[in-house]
Amino acid sequence: MEREQVTAHIIETLKAKNITYQQVSEAVGRSLVWTTLALHGQATMDKSEAEKAGALLSLTPEQIQSLQDMPARGSLDIIPPTDPTIYRFYELVLVYGTTLKALINEKFGDGIMSAIDFTMDMEKVPNPNGDRVKITMEGKFLPYKKW
Amino acid sequence: MEREQVTAHIIETLKAKNITYQQVSEAVGRSLVWTTLALHGQATMDKSEAEKAGALLSLTPEQIQSLQDMPARGSLDIIPPTDPTIYRFYELVLVYGTTLKALINEKFGDGIMSAIDFTMDMEKVPNPNGDRVKITMEGKFLPYKKW
Amino acid sequence: MEREQVTAHIIETLKAKNITYQQVSEAVGRSLVWTTLALHGQATMDKSEAEKAGALLSLTPEQIQSLQDMPARGSLDIIPPTDPTIYRFYELVLVYGTTLKALINEKFGDGIMSAIDFTMDMEKVPNPNGDRVKITMEGKFLPYKKW
Amino acid sequence: MEREQVTAHIIETLKAKNITYQQVSEAVGRSLVWTTLALHGQATMDKSEAEKAGALLSLTPEQIQSLQDMPARGSLDIIPPTDPTIYRFYELVLVYGTTLKALINEKFGDGIMSAIDFTMDMEKVPNPNGDRVKITMEGKFLPYKKW
Amino acid sequence: MEREQVTAHIIETLKAKNITYQQVSEAVGRSLVWTTLALHGQATMDKSEAEKAGALLSLTPEQIQSLQDMPARGSLDIIPPTDPTIYRFYELVLVYGTTLKALINEKFGDGIMSAIDFTMDMEKVPNPNGDRVKITMEGKFLPYKKW
Amino acid sequence: MEREQVTAHIIETLKAKNITYQQVSEAVGRSLVWTTLALHGQATMDKSEAEKAGALLSLTPEQIQSLQDMPARGSLDIIPPTDPTIYRFYELVLVYGTTLKALINEKFGDGIMSAIDFTMDMEKVPNPNGDRVKITMEGKFLPYKKW
Amino acid sequence: MEREQVTAHIIETLKAKNITYQQVSEAVGRSLVWTTLALHGQATMDKSEAEKAGALLSLTPEQIQSLQDMPARGSLDIIPPTDPTIYRFYELVLVYGTTLKALINEKFGDGIMSAIDFTMDMEKVPNPNGDRVKITMEGKFLPYKKW
Amino acid sequence: MEREQVTAHIIETLKAKNITYQQVSEAVGRSLVWTTLALHGQATMDKSEAEKAGALLSLTPEQIQSLQDMPARGSLDIIPPTDPTIYRFYELVLVYGTTLKALINEKFGDGIMSAIDFTMDMEKVPNPNGDRVKITMEGKFLPYKKW
Amino acid sequence: MEREQVTAHIIETLKAKNITYQQVSEAVGRSLVWTTLALHGQATMDKSEAEKAGALLSLTPEQIQSLQDMPARGSLDIIPPTDPTIYRFYELVLVYGTTLKALINEKFGDGIMSAIDFTMDMEKVPNPNGDRVKITMEGKFLPYKKW
Amino acid sequence: MEREQVTAHIIETLKAKNITYQQVSEAVGRSLVWTTLALHGQATMDKSEAEKAGALLSLTPEQIQSLQDMPARGSLDIIPPTDPTIYRFYELVLVYGTTLKALINEKFGDGIMSAIDFTMDMEKVPNPNGDRVKITMEGKFLPYKKW
Repeated sequence: MEREQVTAHIIETLKAKNITYQQVSEAVGRSLVWTTLALHGQATMDKSEAEKAGALLSLTPEQIQSLQDMPARGSLDIIPPTDPTIYRFYELVLVYGTTLKALINEKFGDGIMSAIDFTMDMEKVPNPNGDRVKITMEGKFLPYKKW
Repeated sequence: MEREQVTAHIIETLKAKNITYQQVSEAVGRSLVWTTLALHGQATMDKSEAEKAGALLSLTPEQIQSLQDMPARGSLDIIPPTDPTIYRFYELVLVYGTTLKALINEKFGDGIMSAIDFTMDMEKVPNPNGDRVKITMEGKFLPYKKW
Repeated sequence: MEREQVTAHIIETLKAKNITYQQVSEAVGRSLVWTTLALHGQATMDKSEAEKAGALLSLTPEQIQSLQDMPARGSLDIIPPTDPTIYRFYELVLVYGTTLKALINEKFGDGIMSAIDFTMDMEKVPNPNGDRVKITMEGKFLPYKKW
Repeated sequence: MEREQVTAHIIETLKAKNITYQQVSEAVGRSLVWTTLALHGQATMDKSEAEKAGALLSLTPEQIQSLQDMPARGSLDIIPPTDPTIYRFYELVLVYGTTLKALINEKFGDGIMSAIDFTMDMEKVPNPNGDRVKITMEGKFLPYKKW
Repeated sequence: MEREQVTAHIIETLKAKNITYQQVSEAVGRSLVWTTLALHGQATMDKSEAEKAGALLSLTPEQIQSLQDMPARGSLDIIPPTDPTIYRFYELVLVYGTTLKALINEKFGDGIMSAIDFTMDMEKVPNPNGDRVKITMEGKFLPYKKW
Repeated sequence: MEREQVTAHIIETLKAKNITYQQVSEAVGRSLVWTTLALHGQATMDKSEAEKAGALLSLTPEQIQSLQDMPARGSLDIIPPTDPTIYRFYELVLVYGTTLKALINEKFGDGIMSAIDFTMDMEKVPNPNGDRVKITMEGKFLPYKKW
Repeated sequence: MEREQVTAHIIETLKAKNITYQQVSEAVGRSLVWTTLALHGQATMDKSEAEKAGALLSLTPEQIQSLQDMPARGSLDIIPPTDPTIYRFYELVLVYGTTLKALINEKFGDGIMSAIDFTMDMEKVPNPNGDRVKITMEGKFLPYKKW
Repeated sequence: MEREQVTAHIIETLKAKNITYQQVSEAVGRSLVWTTLALHGQATMDKSEAEKAGALLSLTPEQIQSLQDMPARGSLDIIPPTDPTIYRFYELVLVYGTTLKALINEKFGDGIMSAIDFTMDMEKVPNPNGDRVKITMEGKFLPYKKW
Repeated sequence: MEREQVTAHIIETLKAKNITYQQVSEAVGRSLVWTTLALHGQATMDKSEAEKAGALLSLTPEQIQSLQDMPARGSLDIIPPTDPTIYRFYELVLVYGTTLKALINEKFGDGIMSAIDFTMDMEKVPNPNGDRVKITMEGKFLPYKKW
Repeated sequence: MEREQVTAHIIETLKAKNITYQQVSEAVGRSLVWTTLALHGQATMDKSEAEKAGALLSLTPEQIQSLQDMPARGSLDIIPPTDPTIYRFYELVLVYGTTLKALINEKFGDGIMSAIDFTMDMEKVPNPNGDRVKITMEGKFLPYKKW
């Protein structure tokens, strides 16, 4: 609960102070996606990162400590998500799920793409027919162990 | 149901004939991810694409027709998916959901990344510490309409 | 949570001040459906729209700001909805779902009607046997991309 | 079960014979949406309508009888629907649900729009920026009875 | 939420003042079932009805206003209901569901019994082997429209 | 499974032979609702009743035996029911649930209306504004035992 | 909600005052299981019983009144129950469900064991290999009514 | 699946040959409840028990073997159970769940009643006001281990 | 609820005072896993254990009492768990479930591994390719009783 | 589906030929748990392993091929599992979930125990008070990546 309150406070502060995730990310010295993830209570900052974010956002020491705690992960209030922006990603799993498994199996063998040893980036690709969202994900392939 | 049987038949044929999705994709002249998607009953081939796939896989005319039908999309037998390779993508939505929404909103405004006007690619990134799965997704940004 | 509180406050204010959605819509300069949608926390007003609504409803600056935030969409407290007025629309999806898909496919090809690039209107059609609710929806057809 | 098999057979026949829902609708002498609804096992044809459809589609007497039976309604295999074309309508209920109720209440009073004494039409609206799907629904307003 | 609080307050007041639903119903001038429905936040009183109920129960003007609001209907906290008195009615739907549909279809044709243009009454039928609960429901038959 | 097949066979036979539930009920010598319930696999006929139904419907000895077996009750394929005719009854439980409990408690004390020592009837009430479905249910009141 | 708070208060009071359910049961003059059931908000005490319990537990008049109210029954916060002591009883229903039905049908005919006209007792049976919990339940057999 | 087919076959055989569970139990030399449990695929007979049951019921060697297999336990097709005879036991868990836990804790300490080292019996208790079902369960108390 | 608040307070105190579960376990004189379990509200300390934990963590007498209460067990806020660290254990049950049953049956016969007469330990196994988590569980085998 | 049929066939064959998982494991040259996992369709044998298992179990070439396919993992027919032997493991996750996370976080930092780079063993520990099931699991710790 507490971490959720810190997350809610941070989101309100960003709006009130007109600070972007991009600016926090630059202050913290981490990528945009990861910094946003941590501000949303889904990743753990170290002391220095949390203090830099705290300085920019005028957080209390307790809130700065909270950013360093290992959170109970899971960002959605409702599953399946009702918000269309989030649902489209959920839909991609429903539609592309077996395709992703088939191709990982074909290219790498029996195993998974790690969601832990994993990075993600997002870019805006300008396009005269409408700008495009480009998301790149990269995770370590982990083969199933036999013993 | 019928499309599911065609999908199952194709997967068995690929194994029995030792043909890869990559090879089908080259025969069809479409990207690897999209071709796999279509073979899994989640996209619609045109006549020429279906015939090329059919020739390589020795499909019947009825099966070739089936690849051209507009399918009832949704590839998962069980939701949430129990297979770890697919679940990891589901987990990414749970953990990164609000982050993705926040960044799309910050970079583009109020709207979504289309899951229809959308492409996806997958690459194998060699790495001495373990190869990595790289997935790139790109979808058109669609702003909410006001009226 | 906060947005829900603003929504609840607005609904109470409308009743207390005896103001209609129609009146807010005229003050804001947007259609009736869209204005109601925004007041229910499901769309984003710009600064000028929010201020006009705020003036009419005597909202605080914080509440006016809230109307400009990009909300977590999803208006239902419980799914399937238990309220009969809302359930009837849910039922239409259950009964007409495959029909809508079949006709979109027949008329437009493989794709969807956008729920984002989308407008809706509602009219009262007088009828001696009982007035009728007329709802018109229009969304852009989005064809599935191949690549 | 049986009705579902008749529905499946009809859908296959339409594809195999290259007949459109529009053509069946003209043969039957009913609107396009209602005819499609009936072919999908969600409405009841009378004898004459069923025979006209049966003649066009070469149905057996038993299948023609089935079109006249009162069906167990509900067209979706899975709820929430995973197919994006159908899901978008489901999403509209999630997002517009309270808005629709508020406006029906404001314009008509305490009651519902009937989903039984109800008609629906779909049109293609050509547009240089992409054709648009236009859906019109009209249902009788039913006020809650007091006693 | 507010309506639920008004409902809870009314239920407590009835007990504390030892007033029965029957007495409120007589004061309001409506049937017992409908009056109880309205007090439970599932129907809408008009001004005069609400004021009579308010006078008997010493409600505040705000609570009297609340009785006139169109509520979000649905009275159960949990579905399926765990309370045995309510569950038995739920069970009746599970067991008698297809029977009710078959008989409505046989007697009236393809359509439904309206739950809106609908009345319900409850009587106590004395019986030496144990009194019996008699419930009478009457709803308008609505035939499915064709077009 | 077997009982469901007998039920399905009976429903088809009724249509094929153009026999009504009313006629079976008269042949069996039981009320219309109870006879329909038994034909739908939700009640148990005795030998004589089953044989009379069997004679009218040309059932096999095995099917006649099946009508005498104590069934696994529960007539709905999907819960909540998607068919509108059945759903309306489900909705009545959602909306009237707490009202029914409050009135049973007020009139009878702490207990339930039995769904076992229970009868139901349905009548068609002609009405110039549209015929009405009248359903009467009567169940024994069972007080909670204390010990 | 209120009843749940009274239940929680009583449980804390029992611990704080070191009073057992056995002692309350003796003060109230009812069996141990029934008294515990009532204290947990699942049964209704009469005035005299509630006052005796109230005297022993130093309850307020309002709390004593609450023990006499007819509660919304259902004692579990989560279903299926996660607490192992409660889950074992849930598991018994899963495993023994069809056995219990088969034997009630064989011994009594088509009907149910009432859960309303019902008593339950619990004893401790000393055993050198580990004491045993003995639970005895007795409910009236209710035959299905035909009409 | 196979065990379910053996169970179904046994139930049909019992009816066809007019053999009771009581008779099987006597032939097998085990209690009535346990024997019924095993015939329903929820317990494991030894070779001798299975052969005695098989002789009485004319089972094949494969079916006799099946009675000796360790089954995947769980006898209900649907949860919560829709059949009223089974549901009443489910309801007892909902209503008595916290009471059972409180009394086990008070009488025995922190632990559970085993559902494995467990016996159950059922008796018919004649009663002029209606016969009663008496069920006795006894399970070993298992205290939580500390280490 | 109260126990959850004590758990939350303890977790915050551990962070604020920089005390590890290991240190509490040593103070209490119990194993690391069991002590952590008790601090998370899933096991019951005796008076002496609770007082030692209370002294180290500066708990109030009421909080110390709470550690001795028999809790309502179940530690997860959401099921299936969304936190990846916890989900992996859930996944192990999904994937290894039938394997565990098959091997327990093969090695021990028809029965279960007790989750009550049960211990668990966790060790860190250093490894140059990445440290490993080693978890050892041991539970008494409980054979199904026959009677 | 096909893999499930192979699994079912193997389980029947083991019983019919009186072969143990232990014997298959020795023939295959892999650990007991992993071999059982693979026979249950949850892991992938290589050609040599599958042929050894196939020789012992007289499998067809197609079944031997199937053991080498990458399966859709997930061994449970129903979730939560109703079989008590499997449920106890599910219960351990419910009860120990937050404890396991807290200790992994304390000993290793922010991350997970891999369920992929993972081994499990099971032993029988003789004990005069009842034999014990000992399960040892070891998985690589994977720290969350920052970028």
